Amino acid sequence: MKRIAVIITDMFQDVEYRQPADAFRKAGHELVHVGIVSAGSIVKGEYGTLVQIDKAVRDVAADDFDALFIPGGYSPDKLRIDENAIRFTRDFFTKKKPVFAICHAAQLLITAQVLEGRRVTGWKSLVQDIKNAGAEYVDEEVVVDGNLVSSRKPSDIPAFVRESLTMLQ
Amino acid sequence: MKRIAVIITDMFQDVEYRQPADAFRKAGHELVHVGIVSAGSIVKGEYGTLVQIDKAVRDVAADDFDALFIPGGYSPDKLRIDENAIRFTRDFFTKKKPVFAICHAAQLLITAQVLEGRRVTGWKSLVQDIKNAGAEYVDEEVVVDGNLVSSRKPSDIPAFVRESLTMLQ
Repeated sequence: MKRIAVIITDMFQDVEYRQPADAFRKAGHELVHVGIVSAGSIVKGEYGTLVQIDKAVRDVAADDFDALFIPGGYSPDKLRIDENAIRFTRDFFTKKKPVFAICHAAQLLITAQVLEGRRVTGWKSLVQDIKNAGAEYVDEEVVVDGNLVSSRKPSDIPAFVRESLTMLQ
Repeated sequence: MKRIAVIITDMFQDVEYRQPADAFRKAGHELVHVGIVSAGSIVKGEYGTLVQIDKAVRDVAADDFDALFIPGGYSPDKLRIDENAIRFTRDFFTKKKPVFAICHAAQLLITAQVLEGRRVTGWKSLVQDIKNAGAEYVDEEVVVDGNLVSSRKPSDIPAFVRESLTMLQ
């Protein structure tokens, strides 16, 4: 059983959160929802899914977890303006802990400045941003590079979950 | 009287569209709403404002207009995956016609690859993306560089409108 931080806020893409979260739990892992709002607050997906924040990001560190999961949607655009969210995300890379990033999640990775020289994928609107960050954009359903698993969109979720679970073994 | 293309789609930031649009009309300019959907379709702002698309972007060219206005919100994230929207935006720069970009509008400019060497501002989530695109990010309410007027957020709108109208004179 591993302890996975899910960094998430309003406007997350519902399915990109729910399906991997369900699969991670079913495989026996623990999820801790980390937000830029206070513990106990509720955040809302683009299509109405509600998620309760377990921990404020300012109160946690990468050392408290085995992996980081970043759902897509417009949540990463909101997370990347928070200093603590950026620091927290960057620390998973510094410590070489697994990071699972789908769709717009790459936006948070760009602001954390952890993509240089990496092979990565993400939602197609971000292709130029990902290249400009010094990474190689790979147009595949899932890309594994070191500690990072990345995918493009909801239909990639089965491959995304498969590679994420493999990395947790 | 100048003819301004407004490139816009779903999830635009309502006020960042409405207030400049009203000011441009009040100053006697004509607005033509250009979209990635068919002419006649309705697009919807983040807070419910409805806008009818006058022209599909595939049917227009920068030569048909005197200026381009790009409202913010999540509309630019959707526009930047459309080849025609990218080409149309880039052509205003090639032809040195005025471009008015607020908040997330810089995302479309990044994909159009027109920011290198420019002074520009935009919503704070985009700071790293703008720098990575080779531009200088300027944290001011309005930045004018050549044909480009840019602003950060709704409270910058008065300055944004003032400089945009000056450029149209």
